[in-house]
Amino acid sequence: MINQERLWHRIMALSKIGRQPSGGITRLSFSTEERQAKDLIISYMKEAGLSVREDAVGNLIGKKTGKNPEAPIVLTGSHVDSVYNGGNFDGPLGVIAAVEALQTMAEQEIVLEHSIEVVAFTDEEGARFSFGMMGSRGMAGTLKIEDLHNNTDVDGITIAEAMGKAGFNPDKIGQAVRHKDELKAYVELHIEQGKLLENADLSVGVVTGIAGPLWKKFIIEGEAGHAGTTPMTLRHDALTAAAQIIQIIETEAAQTGSTVGTVGQLQLTPGGINIIPGRVEFTLDLRDIDETVRDRVEQAITSKSHQICEERQLTLTIEEFQRIPPVACSPIVQDAAKKACEKLGFGILTLPSGAGHDGMQLAELCDIGMIFARSKDGISHTPAEWSSKEDCANATNVLYHTLIQLAE
Amino acid sequence: MINQERLWHRIMALSKIGRQPSGGITRLSFSTEERQAKDLIISYMKEAGLSVREDAVGNLIGKKTGKNPEAPIVLTGSHVDSVYNGGNFDGPLGVIAAVEALQTMAEQEIVLEHSIEVVAFTDEEGARFSFGMMGSRGMAGTLKIEDLHNNTDVDGITIAEAMGKAGFNPDKIGQAVRHKDELKAYVELHIEQGKLLENADLSVGVVTGIAGPLWKKFIIEGEAGHAGTTPMTLRHDALTAAAQIIQIIETEAAQTGSTVGTVGQLQLTPGGINIIPGRVEFTLDLRDIDETVRDRVEQAITSKSHQICEERQLTLTIEEFQRIPPVACSPIVQDAAKKACEKLGFGILTLPSGAGHDGMQLAELCDIGMIFARSKDGISHTPAEWSSKEDCANATNVLYHTLIQLAE
Repeated sequence: MINQERLWHRIMALSKIGRQPSGGITRLSFSTEERQAKDLIISYMKEAGLSVREDAVGNLIGKKTGKNPEAPIVLTGSHVDSVYNGGNFDGPLGVIAAVEALQTMAEQEIVLEHSIEVVAFTDEEGARFSFGMMGSRGMAGTLKIEDLHNNTDVDGITIAEAMGKAGFNPDKIGQAVRHKDELKAYVELHIEQGKLLENADLSVGVVTGIAGPLWKKFIIEGEAGHAGTTPMTLRHDALTAAAQIIQIIETEAAQTGSTVGTVGQLQLTPGGINIIPGRVEFTLDLRDIDETVRDRVEQAITSKSHQICEERQLTLTIEEFQRIPPVACSPIVQDAAKKACEKLGFGILTLPSGAGHDGMQLAELCDIGMIFARSKDGISHTPAEWSSKEDCANATNVLYHTLIQLAE
Repeated sequence: MINQERLWHRIMALSKIGRQPSGGITRLSFSTEERQAKDLIISYMKEAGLSVREDAVGNLIGKKTGKNPEAPIVLTGSHVDSVYNGGNFDGPLGVIAAVEALQTMAEQEIVLEHSIEVVAFTDEEGARFSFGMMGSRGMAGTLKIEDLHNNTDVDGITIAEAMGKAGFNPDKIGQAVRHKDELKAYVELHIEQGKLLENADLSVGVVTGIAGPLWKKFIIEGEAGHAGTTPMTLRHDALTAAAQIIQIIETEAAQTGSTVGTVGQLQLTPGGINIIPGRVEFTLDLRDIDETVRDRVEQAITSKSHQICEERQLTLTIEEFQRIPPVACSPIVQDAAKKACEKLGFGILTLPSGAGHDGMQLAELCDIGMIFARSKDGISHTPAEWSSKEDCANATNVLYHTLIQLAE
């Protein structure tokens, strides 16, 4: 059994880094706060007896070498970056739990056939550059050097510039790529960020698949003008068109019963109280476990948006940031996690993940799977995000036994 | 007849101050650019033989003393501040034309019974502090010291702080107040900012009344949450509600055929691509020549907005920045302007002003009126704002003859 007090103490210690006056956490990739968080994790990895390194995209990796150093490695972990004003558990739990599991193995003098590596992936959230899962893409070999130059933060800094400033060479990201034959499986413990476990009165769940996020940007160009002297009939207001599209996104997603569609960012210009908005940009985050359903909703939104902008004589451009297909969790990992639940006397609940996770990027490399810990009120990405000490410990015990099965 | 070349040269010279890379003008109140603009106007006022002073709210005043210095004064002028990325004519034309009219009188050795003052009013646009017509409010005695402390710019600087930095003492604004018996009339030349003169193929029009702007702020508070894991049915998204309200504003205003309603500013938080917006703030600018119609539209918007937010379990707060009743132009000023048009052989078109102007604030002090110059394509508040050299000259000649009638 893992050490519940140590686990909780470490989660609380990490929650002090990047804390805002609101109580929320802002730890963006390649920031001072992210560096501090990684340094703290390094200290825990060393306490756990792991050998520590950072790869070329900034993934922090702690390794426990197995009996057979040539056998494919079992990966586990999560991330320590956060969204703007987010919570303490989304990411940190999976990293700290993985270190705890390996430290417990060391204390129990358990040495398994396969080596196990704990990874804290770089920029899972995509909050800074609107480009997420950077570390796992880098490991999977799907991160391109252009991606590092084409994506910027709110200050116009590119990923490449931020990497450079943090001491990483963006031209060397190829060194982070892992090969199929060196990896056995990836399992991540994460908070559920939904209410299914709470409704089932369970601490821990086994994930069946991960919904694929589709991220787009809508740019509407109309005509700015004086708010007092331009009759309603002569306007080409970019915001009123955006408002209509935002409603369509809500309606089309809600109709399916499973798709979720969110406009999380919106900027308008010129931005005067008495000026008609001539230009609006907004983002769309669209997800579903079923790719066909998601793509059907996307089609409906796209065609209706073009129709609205045509009728209003506006120009609409839709850019795509990322289109990730949903990913199924491997039966091997699911079975190991279910057996771990059984061993610990927990009920077994299987459930999908509405949120994207680094495992999606690794699905071509190895078997992937996830374990969910109960989220209070299903809330995440806000300061109110919470999982109890007991739930964190129960989920970490499931991870511990899952890792033993996968690596023995 | 006024000097067309000198007038145009001065308009062009002023247009270089505060010019942005886009070609648009940004001259905010109490900024370096506004100071430079006022200094240039001072040099023109001195060329015109006017005695120059600045009052306690920063209004720049150039005076031509009449035969009877005790007789009530005729005021004319406009403003030199601009919106963000605005044009070269909205404001500057009225100030430069007024100086030109008085310089022409001096050259013609015309001395009238009444003194005439040219005023460049402080912050007509309200672009910086979302609080317009500051100078004319100060002159009318309706500007309160609280207004200076309660309104801030995007950097959180209050009007009082900005005034202090620009060398004005916010506690002394009372010194700028004028009394009814010292003023005879106020007449302002301004660009139309609409298409009625263009459609009528005329350079100049006589204004019948000014629509009253109503400025409000809507604050919607919902619940932020994860874009991937919060089902559509469990959301309290502040932006989707805002989108619905923006559509209602458009529909309700358009239905009347005369009201205009504009949402020109919108901010949402937290602002992550994968976070449901928990809070949205947006502004409303609502105008009509008919106060009853405007207030009926406002009522409809307010009650429907509350209904939407109630259904969506969101909190809605509506704040009011300003509520200015429409103002009729005085027959005395209208008649003088019509006679000036006749004298110059121009057709006479009377028209309303959809935009607010400083004259509204002065209506309790004296007879007020306005002259409009044709706007190319009816465009204003953008870099494309334009009135031709000939139209500017024609309108300035109308102002010249109007002032002579009012002051003789």
